[in-house]
Amino acid sequence: MIKGIIFDLDNTLVDFMRMKKHSCEEAMVAMIDSGLEMDKEKGLKILYKLYDKYGIEHKQIFQEFLKKVNKKIDYKILANGIVAYRRVKAGFLIPYPHVHSTLLALKNKGIKLAILTDAPRMRAWTRLASLKLTDFFDAVITFEETGKKKPHKKPFEKALKSLGLDANEVLMVGDWPERDIEGAKNLGIKTCFAKYGYGWRKKKLGKVRSNFMINDIKELLRIIK
Amino acid sequence: MIKGIIFDLDNTLVDFMRMKKHSCEEAMVAMIDSGLEMDKEKGLKILYKLYDKYGIEHKQIFQEFLKKVNKKIDYKILANGIVAYRRVKAGFLIPYPHVHSTLLALKNKGIKLAILTDAPRMRAWTRLASLKLTDFFDAVITFEETGKKKPHKKPFEKALKSLGLDANEVLMVGDWPERDIEGAKNLGIKTCFAKYGYGWRKKKLGKVRSNFMINDIKELLRIIK
Repeated sequence: MIKGIIFDLDNTLVDFMRMKKHSCEEAMVAMIDSGLEMDKEKGLKILYKLYDKYGIEHKQIFQEFLKKVNKKIDYKILANGIVAYRRVKAGFLIPYPHVHSTLLALKNKGIKLAILTDAPRMRAWTRLASLKLTDFFDAVITFEETGKKKPHKKPFEKALKSLGLDANEVLMVGDWPERDIEGAKNLGIKTCFAKYGYGWRKKKLGKVRSNFMINDIKELLRIIK
Repeated sequence: MIKGIIFDLDNTLVDFMRMKKHSCEEAMVAMIDSGLEMDKEKGLKILYKLYDKYGIEHKQIFQEFLKKVNKKIDYKILANGIVAYRRVKAGFLIPYPHVHSTLLALKNKGIKLAILTDAPRMRAWTRLASLKLTDFFDAVITFEETGKKKPHKKPFEKALKSLGLDANEVLMVGDWPERDIEGAKNLGIKTCFAKYGYGWRKKKLGKVRSNFMINDIKELLRIIK
């Protein structure tokens, strides 16, 4: 019987890559408006390559971008890019449809809930706070809690311990087959693949060896029953 | 004849302390809502004292606050405070009345404009970008440009050099008598005291030895003529 659910955060509860895409586009438009000599699409390609290189949570990505394309940083261009990015991000940082009502229904059933994310602690927590979701979770495990990323067993073990539940009482919900699903399976945790969060990847989806697969988070209520 | 104007930024072009006050109040309410056991007014007093101690631009002031009042940092409380702070800040970061139209009129008269602020570079630039003011200025001198703060002569010299003007061709506009006005006078720069930006201080205003004094930035157009 499922007594607890562990959720991945980005692209499982929040459409992170949609936010990222729109924010980067508006940042590029703002930088061009402020004097950057660059074709928008070409600039975005370079920016996304830098994200691939430095990681999607890199804190100075626009600085790296301007150094790469202009040799030096023009602070007028940089500041207008960052401000546009933040403005759009604030508007797009919303939960997927049915996240709020589903979490509430799960809490009403007495299910314990946890977040298990590889994101840095402050980023993860402020993202949850922006989404108004901090009250729902009995545990929030971020990168800093173990210093290891999924599929390493440590973050999963930490989540189970924080919930006070055994592996066979818990369901892991996530959009990343190699990290969320395989990592949880290795510990005997049941798994649910959030297929709706996978679409942004270039890589075609192979066979996912999860116990369940959902296209909308509200389907969890059926699975739990 | 005045050929250039150097503006202080915070409390001269933007009502920084009003933003700070409202943002801190909402952050405190959000932290209390998230579990902080604290009287709101008492919490704000402690927070403002920490700003006095660490400086108004300190980047981890809520971390310091929670360490002080709770011994350790509760990330749920911290994240909800920070998110509330940012949300309110975004709404209050607007120029004083008549800033935009006055800057435009000054540019139309061929007056060169500069910003001279003790704020850190990225903070100053993103503040200007949020205000949509980056296009107005021929030079932006922040703390990092000289490593010295007003009334030190270095930032003033840097501003004059960036504008390509002599001291007697320039007017300094600022709200801080000891820093903006005295600092500019020491170099022979004409001075205008932005009295409207002074009110938040506890200290009563003494005699200000400026050439001009304004209660609204649009009065500059009369002074320049």
